[in-house]
Amino acid sequence: MSAEVARIGLLGLGTVGSAFRDLVSQRAEAVAASSGRRPEIAGVLRTTEGDFDHILETSEIVVELIGGTDPARDYVLRALKAGRHVVTANKQLIAQFGDELFDAARDAGVELRFEAAVAGVVPVIRVIQESLAATEVSKVFGIVNGTTNFILSEMASTGVSFADALRRAQELGYAEADPTDDVDGADAAAKMAILARLAFGAPVALADVTYEGITEIQPDDIAYAKELGLSLKLLGVAERRDGGLSVRVFPCFLYPGHPLAPVEGPFNAVMVEAPAITEITMSGPGAGGVETASAVLGDVVSILSGRTPVHAAREPLEIVRDQSSSFYLHLEVADRPGVLARIADVLGRNEVSVRSVVQRGLGDDARLVMVMHEGPETRFFAALEQIATLDFLRAQPRAIRVIEEEFV
Amino acid sequence: MSAEVARIGLLGLGTVGSAFRDLVSQRAEAVAASSGRRPEIAGVLRTTEGDFDHILETSEIVVELIGGTDPARDYVLRALKAGRHVVTANKQLIAQFGDELFDAARDAGVELRFEAAVAGVVPVIRVIQESLAATEVSKVFGIVNGTTNFILSEMASTGVSFADALRRAQELGYAEADPTDDVDGADAAAKMAILARLAFGAPVALADVTYEGITEIQPDDIAYAKELGLSLKLLGVAERRDGGLSVRVFPCFLYPGHPLAPVEGPFNAVMVEAPAITEITMSGPGAGGVETASAVLGDVVSILSGRTPVHAAREPLEIVRDQSSSFYLHLEVADRPGVLARIADVLGRNEVSVRSVVQRGLGDDARLVMVMHEGPETRFFAALEQIATLDFLRAQPRAIRVIEEEFV
Repeated sequence: MSAEVARIGLLGLGTVGSAFRDLVSQRAEAVAASSGRRPEIAGVLRTTEGDFDHILETSEIVVELIGGTDPARDYVLRALKAGRHVVTANKQLIAQFGDELFDAARDAGVELRFEAAVAGVVPVIRVIQESLAATEVSKVFGIVNGTTNFILSEMASTGVSFADALRRAQELGYAEADPTDDVDGADAAAKMAILARLAFGAPVALADVTYEGITEIQPDDIAYAKELGLSLKLLGVAERRDGGLSVRVFPCFLYPGHPLAPVEGPFNAVMVEAPAITEITMSGPGAGGVETASAVLGDVVSILSGRTPVHAAREPLEIVRDQSSSFYLHLEVADRPGVLARIADVLGRNEVSVRSVVQRGLGDDARLVMVMHEGPETRFFAALEQIATLDFLRAQPRAIRVIEEEFV
Repeated sequence: MSAEVARIGLLGLGTVGSAFRDLVSQRAEAVAASSGRRPEIAGVLRTTEGDFDHILETSEIVVELIGGTDPARDYVLRALKAGRHVVTANKQLIAQFGDELFDAARDAGVELRFEAAVAGVVPVIRVIQESLAATEVSKVFGIVNGTTNFILSEMASTGVSFADALRRAQELGYAEADPTDDVDGADAAAKMAILARLAFGAPVALADVTYEGITEIQPDDIAYAKELGLSLKLLGVAERRDGGLSVRVFPCFLYPGHPLAPVEGPFNAVMVEAPAITEITMSGPGAGGVETASAVLGDVVSILSGRTPVHAAREPLEIVRDQSSSFYLHLEVADRPGVLARIADVLGRNEVSVRSVVQRGLGDDARLVMVMHEGPETRFFAALEQIATLDFLRAQPRAIRVIEEEFV
């Protein structure tokens, strides 16, 4: 079979770009067999090589693997407006400029695909857009940053500090030289903005996503929580709430029966809940050059096979910020009578109910590790502010959310 | 927006058919918004109602939810030949008559979709056919029968017998009045034939799938294995081996780090492995009227959105039958000197290597529970045959496979 050639313009030749170029040449025949078209790299653009206009002219699909938003945004817009399909792995681009790019794609009647932008090779975007197109999704949540999941796994299994676990992640290539966006939650926030947009059909701006990272997590938080059977993850959660939408990223303890609790190392895992499906869980490697390149090639094949994803803008949903959560609270206090009573009193007056307490002596001081029942976050934070002013406190209180739900 | 109506002919109005009819009316507007077409049930065929020819004439998509192969095969063939797209949840139909049906769909230029036929709402078919279209899949395996997974979970958590756990599954609606196809592995075998066909692009007949069920599993096998940290699942495994293909269904112990080990109750979970993706795991409810109907509606939406799955027949692969496995072996023997030595000798002569042994007295008898290192199954079965003839044996030996691989 001599399949017609499909010419691809490749922007960016870093780790993912190089892996994609290799994969295209390895899998060209298989793609030809399944889609009827044989992909071929028609031109490569990088700092030292290539000309964008020439690549645009000679390609029918543009694959953007430069990263960042400048000049990627300009290139992608120009490609779409010139009637080229675009595949990108660029989460910042989609999270920040999605509306503009989707409009350009719709106007030009071309496709814009970005499976690799979220959860690497885990096909969460396709599943939400296609398998669940007829389903009213109520919640999408999961572990969408492999760097922080590796760091938290490392802290839990070896007891090292955040700084040491980060260094180890960098040595193994799981964290970049500048890990800020990963460890402060910004990377996960961009991915959750994308997932929320697709799952709920509502425009979600990056600024709508509240996020916290893991830089403040202490090894003893993890150690104490282990005694309670909990494991710590950086979770992204997007859900319908009170007729609106809530999108957040925060570190969180999970009970052992939770499907995300066993996800360790640089893996991603996403759960989708809807009344008609109960829940679907998907997991796999979160990054890696070959894995990301494979997701990009999957998108290219879909374009060649003539499948069209739907980016219908439905009605906007209001962003809801007040939440109901359960909290873990770690306190270092002077070890003297009446301390627990004072704390319990503050919690009680704010209607925060305690689920479990572990107390332990520490010289003249004591440590109190408490887990609360679920309740409005505003009440808990009010109590926390009052607790922070108590004179017997020996260190800043530390609070981390806990997922209480029990699963099958 | 007044979307054009898409007329659907519905064959079968049992649990899934009724749930599908309800879902179509609930989600018609959402489907219209995402696909541009509003689905509508144009006619229903059941024993007491409807006329197939009339339904065919007035529908553009036929949804087959009758089950079984007769008359479903005839209806589906006629629908495809008449140029109607077909969506079915019927695994037996696809596993037994897939080639004929795919050919008919290709000849007529219409789509045949069957996401709901395997793993319920877990979108394993779409992921293999579309996300991984460019990937050389090496292995697809998992838990594809929710009834048996519920029974095994129940036996493990309560210690009851297979018969009691089955009765409980029937009470809860997880097992049918005649559970034969589920508990003997035939249902899982049909699903694995479908997955193998799609993952490897090779024609796989139902007769190519070797299968065992769970009717012979004893509560004390599960109890002993628990001491070794193992949990029991009915696994389907399809993999490339020695340039060919192996497709099997068998009960199997998993070590606790395995991603499938925590899958409990009537859930399904499928893992796909390929060099370019490492592995993807997907899980969710395996059945249920609404869940299955939701997967069927997802297929309908894909057809309305103009996506075309690919069923390119690639080259056939030889079915390989000899396997390399690790085994659990349960022996009841007379409690006298030299017994373990004799058994070890038989194993040694067949080059089967022992990984762990637990021995326990039982009056005049003893129980030996052994786990072997991985090796050719033919050697293990040769040893097993010889062991079965030893005069100090008090009961038939019981052997169950064990997955040794450690995961992240």
